[in-house]
Amino acid sequence: MYTLNELQQIINNKINSLNIGGEPRGLFEPIEYVLSIGGKRIRPALCLLGYQLFSSEKLSDEIIHPAIGLEIFHNFTLLHDDVMDKADMRRNMPTVHKKWDENTAILSGDAMMIKAYQFITKCPAPVLGEVMDTFNELALGVCEGQQYDMDFENRNDVSVDEYIEMIRLKTSVLIAGSLKIGAIIGGASPKDKELLYDFGEKIGIAFQLQDDFLDVYGDSEAFGKKIGGDIVNNKKTFLLLTALRKAEGRQKDNLYNWLSVTGNDEEKIKAIRKIYNELNIPQDSETLMNNYFNSALKALDQISGDDSVKNDLKHFAINLIKRAR
Amino acid sequence: MYTLNELQQIINNKINSLNIGGEPRGLFEPIEYVLSIGGKRIRPALCLLGYQLFSSEKLSDEIIHPAIGLEIFHNFTLLHDDVMDKADMRRNMPTVHKKWDENTAILSGDAMMIKAYQFITKCPAPVLGEVMDTFNELALGVCEGQQYDMDFENRNDVSVDEYIEMIRLKTSVLIAGSLKIGAIIGGASPKDKELLYDFGEKIGIAFQLQDDFLDVYGDSEAFGKKIGGDIVNNKKTFLLLTALRKAEGRQKDNLYNWLSVTGNDEEKIKAIRKIYNELNIPQDSETLMNNYFNSALKALDQISGDDSVKNDLKHFAINLIKRAR
Repeated sequence: MYTLNELQQIINNKINSLNIGGEPRGLFEPIEYVLSIGGKRIRPALCLLGYQLFSSEKLSDEIIHPAIGLEIFHNFTLLHDDVMDKADMRRNMPTVHKKWDENTAILSGDAMMIKAYQFITKCPAPVLGEVMDTFNELALGVCEGQQYDMDFENRNDVSVDEYIEMIRLKTSVLIAGSLKIGAIIGGASPKDKELLYDFGEKIGIAFQLQDDFLDVYGDSEAFGKKIGGDIVNNKKTFLLLTALRKAEGRQKDNLYNWLSVTGNDEEKIKAIRKIYNELNIPQDSETLMNNYFNSALKALDQISGDDSVKNDLKHFAINLIKRAR
Repeated sequence: MYTLNELQQIINNKINSLNIGGEPRGLFEPIEYVLSIGGKRIRPALCLLGYQLFSSEKLSDEIIHPAIGLEIFHNFTLLHDDVMDKADMRRNMPTVHKKWDENTAILSGDAMMIKAYQFITKCPAPVLGEVMDTFNELALGVCEGQQYDMDFENRNDVSVDEYIEMIRLKTSVLIAGSLKIGAIIGGASPKDKELLYDFGEKIGIAFQLQDDFLDVYGDSEAFGKKIGGDIVNNKKTFLLLTALRKAEGRQKDNLYNWLSVTGNDEEKIKAIRKIYNELNIPQDSETLMNNYFNSALKALDQISGDDSVKNDLKHFAINLIKRAR
């Protein structure tokens, strides 16, 4: 049994040793570039943990390749999202549409999604249908989440429930699906597969709520990115949506005034943070996050899998949540 | 057994009766739009013909859904190609990035590819692995072909062989793969599957060579689009590449001069057509096309499948080639 850290390393080494590309170079070079930049390889490592929960067989390509397929898919979504968001940088490196151009980003992204399918297809034949159904559903879910996210930018009536559903689709279903695909290949029972999916879904939502919180209250260095971006962009996170719901009278006017401010970032961040504090938004965020966190652990607890792997998943969850808060 | 025409109709009715979409509407409306505009449904109909070659079972969803998946995939490639080519119209209707915007075209295209996989996955479980491998390979091939096509725009040393390889990937592998996937689901022998793939690949190349020829020599009305577009855009087709190879001395200078002309379309088309005629390019094109056509029919001939279906495929091939020449 490998720990999460070891599995991340195994995936990373495997990706670096793979020959993903070929000709034409214009199509495959951007794919190799994106995969070489790294990232934490969380999703494939979770897939392998999901497998280890139910199987003590050694890690063959029948599980490692599908896990890598999930990482390729994740990076494909980042590639196309960066085009849509016009993001210039990702992981401190220029994005594909900046380094090459937009057409390259579109087409290499398409090829990358197909590559993801090629890797996932290498799972054992008896579970291929179930793995494909699970993957197709999560892949479509991620697109739906991205669409909701873009839709929300132009809407003024987004509810907290809609926001949670958006982050569930955009962030959680890939985490939950990665765990589940590992469990399917590992031979889990239907009940355990659903419990593990449930764990992943809840942890993913808790993670995103934490991420939103840290974007306002985090330590820039520990968080690894600039603080306040969501406030500057009026991003409709749980924090803002809850503040809009709770604020009344002069406070509400004050909040709306600050939302209309542009080009005065530092003051805007301070002012909106102050409003959040007055409205107890940090506590609301923590409460909701803890609810998801606890219900994730409850699901995990009911799984009848290997105890040391369960413990590893539990610590993964704890580490996700306690980041810099 | 249904004829090609009947199968096209069956596919069309099925697509119109399907509920592809769902929420969010911003993601699925463009997909429904693209699929509703139509097209000839050639690829899924060929998939069903490939099936009928080897199976007399009735057409269940286990074959119709994969066939529809191929049509969805084809339309996805058109959607993203139109973004990359900045094409405003397709089948006399505004393209998705014109009717909506570019982000919508990118994301709905992504979702469309996943939808294609969902439909293809509905093939019978025992052949799922083989169908997936075949589909993944053709899907990647189409991307490679599109990349070569874009690369060729910026290269001055494209050979005829490279051009043929480009159209094989961009056009043929989807036709060949559609036939083969039908044959796989129909229970064909390995040899028959390869022969049918070979038939499709050769017919696809012959079709594209014919298409290039008609773009210069066709009757605008019968061809269904404006004549001379490839000449105006200096598109490196078989005709231009062969002319560049054959022309010498003053004729070569003359050809290069006309290639540098912009904004004088009618005269440019006439002049380059005249050079093609002097160099016997139409005959070269016909000879090569006939070679591919004949070797396609030779492959078809060796297939041990239903004779009436073979005859239908033969007439499909003849009709493709004799269009307006």
